[in-house]
Amino acid sequence: MGSVGVLIGQGFDAHRFAPAGSGRELWIAGLYWPVPDSCSEADAAKYEGIEGDSDGDVAAHALIDALLAAARLGDIGSLFGVGADAHGAGMHGIDMLQEVVAHLASNGYTPASASVAIIGNRPKIGTRRAEAEAALSAAVGCPVSVTATTTDHMGFTGHGEGIAAIANALVEKI
Amino acid sequence: MGSVGVLIGQGFDAHRFAPAGSGRELWIAGLYWPVPDSCSEADAAKYEGIEGDSDGDVAAHALIDALLAAARLGDIGSLFGVGADAHGAGMHGIDMLQEVVAHLASNGYTPASASVAIIGNRPKIGTRRAEAEAALSAAVGCPVSVTATTTDHMGFTGHGEGIAAIANALVEKI
Amino acid sequence: MGSVGVLIGQGFDAHRFAPAGSGRELWIAGLYWPVPDSCSEADAAKYEGIEGDSDGDVAAHALIDALLAAARLGDIGSLFGVGADAHGAGMHGIDMLQEVVAHLASNGYTPASASVAIIGNRPKIGTRRAEAEAALSAAVGCPVSVTATTTDHMGFTGHGEGIAAIANALVEKI
Ligand SMILES: [Zn+2]
Ligand SMILES: [Zn+2]
Ligand SMILES: [Zn+2]
Repeated sequence: MGSVGVLIGQGFDAHRFAPAGSGRELWIAGLYWPVPDSCSEADAAKYEGIEGDSDGDVAAHALIDALLAAARLGDIGSLFGVGADAHGAGMHGIDMLQEVVAHLASNGYTPASASVAIIGNRPKIGTRRAEAEAALSAAVGCPVSVTATTTDHMGFTGHGEGIAAIANALVEKI
Repeated sequence: MGSVGVLIGQGFDAHRFAPAGSGRELWIAGLYWPVPDSCSEADAAKYEGIEGDSDGDVAAHALIDALLAAARLGDIGSLFGVGADAHGAGMHGIDMLQEVVAHLASNGYTPASASVAIIGNRPKIGTRRAEAEAALSAAVGCPVSVTATTTDHMGFTGHGEGIAAIANALVEKI
Repeated sequence: MGSVGVLIGQGFDAHRFAPAGSGRELWIAGLYWPVPDSCSEADAAKYEGIEGDSDGDVAAHALIDALLAAARLGDIGSLFGVGADAHGAGMHGIDMLQEVVAHLASNGYTPASASVAIIGNRPKIGTRRAEAEAALSAAVGCPVSVTATTTDHMGFTGHGEGIAAIANALVEKI
């Protein structure tokens, strides 16, 4: 791993927003994004959740892949499975992250730094960035940062079909 | 941040090309890409600029997010604002990068290395890579590299709707 | 490059799947993915190869750009050329990676760690992850990890038009 003793990982994830009226809770970047009380029915669709066997938290999932990749321990699919009967089914991103960090530790790795860029029209990550970074950093046990951007109405994220995330991470051998 | 003392950040950005005849200047990777004198009117559309409140330089913007993320200091939206009245409105990428590096320094961080992958049909980055890397490296104060690729006519970058960039960066605590 | 002595690079690549019946071999992540003997003609299309002047191995190509970027030595286009007459025409990803690592070494750089996230509907990378990581790590001479994900039927990867990869890498000055 070179003389520096640090390993790098890359992660990516994308999920589809649930159709309006699905009643799915919106979880992203380790946080629950509730529909505001003052919200009209039309605006409530902006808080529709994300499809997936787990909570669909692309930010947490991309971070998981970046951390597992840095330690060369597979990816979210190999650790949590795929489908409604999978180990990861119904799990929240924060809980999955904690399990991943424990898995790294039992293999002799510890996260040093991680970052995730969220790509989508909603929710407005910047309004709760500090809260999201605190939740993710606590789960991972190192500084985790969150940035957010849109794609100017282009592509599947710009059309509001779904949301994506690109993450990277550094881990060290304990 | 681990015993190695280095932090990692991830950045992404995408913007739409301005419509033909907009007269927007094309700025990307810290450089101005002028229409060649010999250019026919049809070919001149290939030098149409990028939409946005700033100059739309996705390479600079993705690098900004990667640098801010590594230092956990927010993102381009939180630092420069969004919209025609924002602090960043009308700014060029190089000037924004310099302001970001000063912001990092005042918070005790210094960039160590950064890199950006530009995704789009035009301009042909490879023809001026050394110039772009020199401009970006001077602004950031560390080695910054630029790669470029297309998406084989697939997706919004392949259809020529817009241009995207993915960046990463390492920063150190001063 | 900072006091830590390590440089970071980002890479991205995307290619189109060849049309059914093209007879192109499918090469990805350094591996050949043959059509199983038991495969029906309809299913055989799932093993159709990737278009490109080389073998179209987006994982290898994204890793190449990440490694070259970290050492600030250009990108795959500047090293291998573009088009049917290019130096890289007909080359497999593993051979290109080995040439890249030799190029880094002759410029005083050695890879320390690298990682690639593959985005696409097929092939099922997870079924041969260890083999892919072994092939790529042997070619690069450092730990290389592979993760894989889909985009829930969204965008050009989700529609099965093509396949993409995002890579990062750390290199050290020898
Ligand atoms: Zn996911
Ligand atoms: Zn931008
Ligand atoms: Zn390629």
